[in-house]
Amino acid sequence: MTGVLEQVEQFCLEHGLLHRGDRIVAACSGGPDSLALLVILWQLRRKYDLQIVAAHFEHGIRGAASKADADFVQAFCQQRGIPVQLAATDVPKEAAAQGLSLETAARELRYRFLEQVRQTAGFDAIAVAHHADDQAETVLMRILRGTGTQGLAAMRPRSGKGGTIIRPLLGVTKAAIRAFCAAQGLQPCEDATNEQAECTRNRLRLATLPALKQAYNPELARALCQLAEVAAAETEYIEAQVEALWQDTARVRQQPLALNQQGFSQLPLALQRGLVRRFWQAAAGSRQDLGFGQAEKLRLLLRVGQTSSQLELPHGFVARLAYGWLTCAQRPETAAAPAPADLQIPGCTQWGSYLCTAEWCAEIAPAPTPWELYLQPDDLAEPLVIRQRESGDAIQLPGGRKKLKKLLIDDKIPQQERDQLPILAAGHEVLWVAGHRRSTRCAVAFDRPLKRRVLYLRLERREEIYHDER
Amino acid sequence: MTGVLEQVEQFCLEHGLLHRGDRIVAACSGGPDSLALLVILWQLRRKYDLQIVAAHFEHGIRGAASKADADFVQAFCQQRGIPVQLAATDVPKEAAAQGLSLETAARELRYRFLEQVRQTAGFDAIAVAHHADDQAETVLMRILRGTGTQGLAAMRPRSGKGGTIIRPLLGVTKAAIRAFCAAQGLQPCEDATNEQAECTRNRLRLATLPALKQAYNPELARALCQLAEVAAAETEYIEAQVEALWQDTARVRQQPLALNQQGFSQLPLALQRGLVRRFWQAAAGSRQDLGFGQAEKLRLLLRVGQTSSQLELPHGFVARLAYGWLTCAQRPETAAAPAPADLQIPGCTQWGSYLCTAEWCAEIAPAPTPWELYLQPDDLAEPLVIRQRESGDAIQLPGGRKKLKKLLIDDKIPQQERDQLPILAAGHEVLWVAGHRRSTRCAVAFDRPLKRRVLYLRLERREEIYHDER
Repeated sequence: MTGVLEQVEQFCLEHGLLHRGDRIVAACSGGPDSLALLVILWQLRRKYDLQIVAAHFEHGIRGAASKADADFVQAFCQQRGIPVQLAATDVPKEAAAQGLSLETAARELRYRFLEQVRQTAGFDAIAVAHHADDQAETVLMRILRGTGTQGLAAMRPRSGKGGTIIRPLLGVTKAAIRAFCAAQGLQPCEDATNEQAECTRNRLRLATLPALKQAYNPELARALCQLAEVAAAETEYIEAQVEALWQDTARVRQQPLALNQQGFSQLPLALQRGLVRRFWQAAAGSRQDLGFGQAEKLRLLLRVGQTSSQLELPHGFVARLAYGWLTCAQRPETAAAPAPADLQIPGCTQWGSYLCTAEWCAEIAPAPTPWELYLQPDDLAEPLVIRQRESGDAIQLPGGRKKLKKLLIDDKIPQQERDQLPILAAGHEVLWVAGHRRSTRCAVAFDRPLKRRVLYLRLERREEIYHDER
Repeated sequence: MTGVLEQVEQFCLEHGLLHRGDRIVAACSGGPDSLALLVILWQLRRKYDLQIVAAHFEHGIRGAASKADADFVQAFCQQRGIPVQLAATDVPKEAAAQGLSLETAARELRYRFLEQVRQTAGFDAIAVAHHADDQAETVLMRILRGTGTQGLAAMRPRSGKGGTIIRPLLGVTKAAIRAFCAAQGLQPCEDATNEQAECTRNRLRLATLPALKQAYNPELARALCQLAEVAAAETEYIEAQVEALWQDTARVRQQPLALNQQGFSQLPLALQRGLVRRFWQAAAGSRQDLGFGQAEKLRLLLRVGQTSSQLELPHGFVARLAYGWLTCAQRPETAAAPAPADLQIPGCTQWGSYLCTAEWCAEIAPAPTPWELYLQPDDLAEPLVIRQRESGDAIQLPGGRKKLKKLLIDDKIPQQERDQLPILAAGHEVLWVAGHRRSTRCAVAFDRPLKRRVLYLRLERREEIYHDER
């Protein structure tokens, strides 16, 4: 068994993460993983002539504890003579202002800060501390939520725009990192990252993954990492082939963007699928939001479609086939709402293109987005249901009780959107117009400590979940 | 929502499973899935000018119930004028004679019979009744046990030698099939297939999969089937590319088989991995048994190895690099035994290259292989451990108590193999020399009904598990 330092060095060389003279920003929260990463890079600096700067992002989510983490990282670096950069941001405030979830806002702001440090210093890369157990969790989470082989590839040793994000610890386990910290006498901060927002992932980490290991395979984490490794290489190869094809078959310099139908049906299935994804990415500006079923319909349209055939796609896009070319343009959406769904507590409930996650929790995060809700549902006579609006619906607001119909008119929700709103209700008592308004019935007070556990709900678009990038 | 018949027809056309004039053997156990399959093919026979013969294999595992199933299928077919062929085999006896597990023997003998029916009649294909939920289970099982993208591809719509096995139901759910049976007034046999041997899969079906659906994604089964579909197409494409490369770079007409090192390191990673697997398959006669780690070492040998480098591989194979060519030959194995492992009950325990699955069960299968054991471990003072032999070990046999050392000498186990034997023991009390001998301590009587649950153990080579084909 070689030491963690040697394993990390070996991994970096294999994946081209480390070259002589590299200048690296080491992201450091102060927790065990990032502290180990910083120490390892610092120990390798002479051998590889590295320049290292540590960077700590104080997110302000946990008040005094956040400040203490920042002080710890600063003191740790000063003691060892490691250059360090610090930034403090009120993430909950930013999240609320931008309508993002706390975890999304924290991630985006943190990476923005790290990139800024890198660019200001003219450095090569940002090293982050994701390890093999993080990778295994990501792979399993994606499998459970639904993914193709690209999603399986999960986190790469090198990623980001221009390949500036590197993950030197991706090949070592959490246990090995903890052992390294102990052996080096490091005393990292507690790993109290944003428990609330990540609670689905925490459940996976603390309950599901250990149970699956015990029942099916003690080496499940390693198996998942290997699957990611295999999928990454295959995805990369296929994407390179698709990109070459795309250059030959797409009309990208003219409006509208178009894909040539000729020869498409003779391509191997994997390349047909790749080209369809590439087309959607170019047309819609993102490779997300196109489900497997829709992608297959689009592929079939290209393969056997007659001129003037067309297909409705997410976000109001319509694909049309005409004279051997496939085009794609946007138009306003109109769709029927799905049937009511009983809320699974705890668990996941699907309602049309939405997925609602419900969990009991003992702590609340300070600034829920409009797509998150805390509830104390004990005194309700009827079960909770997610559904479209119904006549007779009413909601309790701070200003008094109101008919839902009147509320939606007063709030200027366009007529054609009203039936698409996800409503959480008990009978005709509306508790939440998700993304929009909360009832004061069953509401949780944010300014007082919790006396008992409350229900935490989060609503997400399924297309977003199916393609979540970490 | 289209009907099941239309869905199946559509799936068959999409995947080329059905052509005008096809002659098809429909495997029929009498259970709901295979009965629905038979009825659907029979209903499509005029439209596609099909010839259909039903084939039932009586495995004799459940005595009178097996006979009743055969009678049911025969009567069902005669009533509708469907030609039918029946065969009866004592699978437990055959399994014991060939040292196979009951499930492996049942599967092999059943497919042998079906192929025989097909060849005798000069028919085109054998239709089997695997459906979308079977596929989802297979995918999840493989992910949990450990797999690459090829394993993810799981069951294909068409497989087998010459593509003679077809799976028309692979696109429809179990629920849809049950609904079809009800709508058609079919009264299938109970689905009491070999519960014992399949108990890990049953646990997955009955407990794990529903729990994961509830907690993470109600549409998990569909997501897993889509993942299989995507992986199948990509695997097929990559394998075709690898096969073309193999023809160009391997020396297959001379002994020993050799692979040319030239240009290898310039290939995309996915193709390097594919070529290494192809090489192992050609050298060892099977693509199984080469774990990911070993395959990667072999790849590294080819990529950067110096002349005279060599690498030990499973089953005593040794790969050698010499003058730009990689060869592979077999030699006797000698390896150190791993440390003792406490038996997880219920659960999975790893010991070296073995994985031991332990489950409580209320029924016992009649003919356990040497790699299966039933135990009533209640009266043991010490915990159960899997380990190599130790001095002081003894075992209770029908003929009396014996020192393990003496037993292994008397049984003529070669000296160099003795330390590699997996021993199940409590203290120095040996209960099982897996694959070889059982103790009479804690043994379960096969000829009396069970009064309480017993422990069922199964030991498998991990390489076999990691690549299980269904």
